[in-house]
Amino acid sequence: MTQSASNRIKLHNNGPEFSKLAAGFWRLNEWDMSTAELIDFIENCLEMGITTMDHADIYGDYQNEGIFGEALKKRPDLREKMEIVSKCGICLPVESRPEHKLQHYNTTAEHIRKSVENSLKELNTDYLDLILIHRPDPLMDASEMADIFMKLHEEGKIKHVGVSNFTTSQFQLFQSKLDLPLVTNQVECSLLHLHAIYDGTFDQCQENNISPMLWSPFAGGQLFNGSGKRIKRIRKVGKKLCRKYDVEFDQLSLAWCFYLPFNPLTILGTGKKARVKKAANALNIKLERQDWFRLLEASRGEPVP
Amino acid sequence: MTQSASNRIKLHNNGPEFSKLAAGFWRLNEWDMSTAELIDFIENCLEMGITTMDHADIYGDYQNEGIFGEALKKRPDLREKMEIVSKCGICLPVESRPEHKLQHYNTTAEHIRKSVENSLKELNTDYLDLILIHRPDPLMDASEMADIFMKLHEEGKIKHVGVSNFTTSQFQLFQSKLDLPLVTNQVECSLLHLHAIYDGTFDQCQENNISPMLWSPFAGGQLFNGSGKRIKRIRKVGKKLCRKYDVEFDQLSLAWCFYLPFNPLTILGTGKKARVKKAANALNIKLERQDWFRLLEASRGEPVP
Amino acid sequence: MTQSASNRIKLHNNGPEFSKLAAGFWRLNEWDMSTAELIDFIENCLEMGITTMDHADIYGDYQNEGIFGEALKKRPDLREKMEIVSKCGICLPVESRPEHKLQHYNTTAEHIRKSVENSLKELNTDYLDLILIHRPDPLMDASEMADIFMKLHEEGKIKHVGVSNFTTSQFQLFQSKLDLPLVTNQVECSLLHLHAIYDGTFDQCQENNISPMLWSPFAGGQLFNGSGKRIKRIRKVGKKLCRKYDVEFDQLSLAWCFYLPFNPLTILGTGKKARVKKAANALNIKLERQDWFRLLEASRGEPVP
Repeated sequence: MTQSASNRIKLHNNGPEFSKLAAGFWRLNEWDMSTAELIDFIENCLEMGITTMDHADIYGDYQNEGIFGEALKKRPDLREKMEIVSKCGICLPVESRPEHKLQHYNTTAEHIRKSVENSLKELNTDYLDLILIHRPDPLMDASEMADIFMKLHEEGKIKHVGVSNFTTSQFQLFQSKLDLPLVTNQVECSLLHLHAIYDGTFDQCQENNISPMLWSPFAGGQLFNGSGKRIKRIRKVGKKLCRKYDVEFDQLSLAWCFYLPFNPLTILGTGKKARVKKAANALNIKLERQDWFRLLEASRGEPVP
Repeated sequence: MTQSASNRIKLHNNGPEFSKLAAGFWRLNEWDMSTAELIDFIENCLEMGITTMDHADIYGDYQNEGIFGEALKKRPDLREKMEIVSKCGICLPVESRPEHKLQHYNTTAEHIRKSVENSLKELNTDYLDLILIHRPDPLMDASEMADIFMKLHEEGKIKHVGVSNFTTSQFQLFQSKLDLPLVTNQVECSLLHLHAIYDGTFDQCQENNISPMLWSPFAGGQLFNGSGKRIKRIRKVGKKLCRKYDVEFDQLSLAWCFYLPFNPLTILGTGKKARVKKAANALNIKLERQDWFRLLEASRGEPVP
Repeated sequence: MTQSASNRIKLHNNGPEFSKLAAGFWRLNEWDMSTAELIDFIENCLEMGITTMDHADIYGDYQNEGIFGEALKKRPDLREKMEIVSKCGICLPVESRPEHKLQHYNTTAEHIRKSVENSLKELNTDYLDLILIHRPDPLMDASEMADIFMKLHEEGKIKHVGVSNFTTSQFQLFQSKLDLPLVTNQVECSLLHLHAIYDGTFDQCQENNISPMLWSPFAGGQLFNGSGKRIKRIRKVGKKLCRKYDVEFDQLSLAWCFYLPFNPLTILGTGKKARVKKAANALNIKLERQDWFRLLEASRGEPVP
């Protein structure tokens, strides 16, 4: 079953339209795909209605954008069928970046321009649909960041701007200097990671009418293979509900995310077509309110107050 | 001694006028009062200047509004002498609500309308002076909540809207969607529960010129019969001050709450006329600033920095 | 080497111009200086470009403003060459203030006026360049505070208003009532005290285009003589960088503070000319971004995420 257009979301009134499920390419270099296989994987995603491709300059130690770009080079027709997200601001100390002595951030205009232009080159594309500041930089000069993004926007190199892992005050600061709307805050959220629900992050998204993008909806796999009382509680409740809805636990976990009230997008990390298909089908689960709270209660270890 | 009109507070410029002390009916079903006795209790409250009656749909496992409503049925003349607050949004798994499988929240338009209309029926009244969302619901759709409250307001079923136990970002979100002012945030506050003083809750109330309503001003009785170093410290300081002001410790605890600078209201939970009278008299205590800090210091366990 | 005019900062568009390094007189009474020696110390500061003098009513148990004022009495010509900051709102239980029974706050109009007028008298000056509320008072009535500061401003007794140790919601509350801009939030910040970087304090400063003033940039000396793993880690990294930049550790610590992106001012606490000179020279250190993160990583105990 493929997803219908109703599974598309405008991140903001003036924002881009994305697919509710995004394909994440964090581990692309570990998938050992030939370019032909990657093209096949991408086409499969598109058929499933998953048109949003989530990248970052640093993924795969700066290699993954290039791997993806090879696919677009061979199949430039695919570009217009997808939305590409990338990120910048983190500097990794890896072999290909000997100038990086330690993991740090750089949100200067010079670094942002260089990173974005390099992402375009690597990805074989003329524009990014969305660029995110990957992590809040304690040294960020919000005005300088705003200026360079405005320029890159005017040059057509980026269509929209957002942030990732920002607190509410960091978001507010950056937005106060930027004449474009921040269209998303990409944050960690799963049954094992509830912070954004309680610390104001999602309140701010809802207030600003933007859709957050949720990363690690399976808590990096811990929901499936982690140990500890909390995870066991969640899986126990999850199993019962999987029988009720006739779905698998990864699908239930996604349905739990999608039930959140502010139109969240969720980012997958798999390179397997079967898992992508299962995830796409999860969009059709009609979770009941009380079952959402059952899972929340299992995660919290106690009923809501 | 009865309270004078000066013990009345407008919760907001466009908000209702309430009595500084509210009678809380959380435990009404445990008081074992006949309707005649309840009428007597209510009349006594009114004589003491306590005109604000604090309810919630769920109090007494959904029974208390009905018990109170029996009194109003026999004495409809009392309705205009009081202000009735109720709350909605929590769903308790009790016998009378077999559809509730676990404690959860429901802040959908459908549930809110049903809950408010049921409160009106139970309470034998045509309107609520104030309706509160009882707890912040992680699933709340602030626009949907705002819309249904606007409708209920237009229909004359509710006069004012507020929240309870909301964080500052939840308050800000809901207010941003609602064309009526949120006139209060009803939160826990006592000598044993200082969070709202420090976490921005009361700052937000003062900024928005609204009066918070404080629940559990005696920390559920712990201030009197709890154990532990912190409580002992507070009681030790409290005893000295009780001698100084010639009052009892429950009165001093209330005076400490009333001394807060943003015109708080405080909710009692007693069904005993003698305790109500003592509380009403506490409004006349002229606490000195340094004595307020003495009690704060005892609660904190160290001087202010 | 003396500092140039470029080491001056406007705290806010409509704020005062201060020197990036301020001389703090917290411990003035412990320096055992004659008035002549103090004049010499002050003149030395001014020569180094350090024109901002940080006081508070309570420093030296209410004695230090008077000691400083003796110097201004003998050398009134110095007044126009400096900017004087003072603070009010804390009440210390010391011999000279028998009416203070315990450490507490007082932010009433009456106390603020009395404190400011006393500071003027003690300091032998007609005006304060900046007055700060020293600590957030849980009992503060922001409107009352705003009104008295407006009056003192109109009377020419204070030029600018700010706060110290305020959370973001306290700052926002006070600003919402005050028709003057709050031109600073004076907060603790050092390699050992990172809170203001992460809790929104500095985000708020940057959003409002104001410069925070950092107190205790050496963590009260702990950076030099404290023990514990964290301090050792910082000193180890610091030593290497001191060799690289050919500076001393106190200078490096200041350079780390100055590297923050929102034009912070930093307050010294020394009465020794040699240390003042070293500090002034620290303004010329051209710290590299990655070295800033090296020190941050040492303080955090792990790389940034």
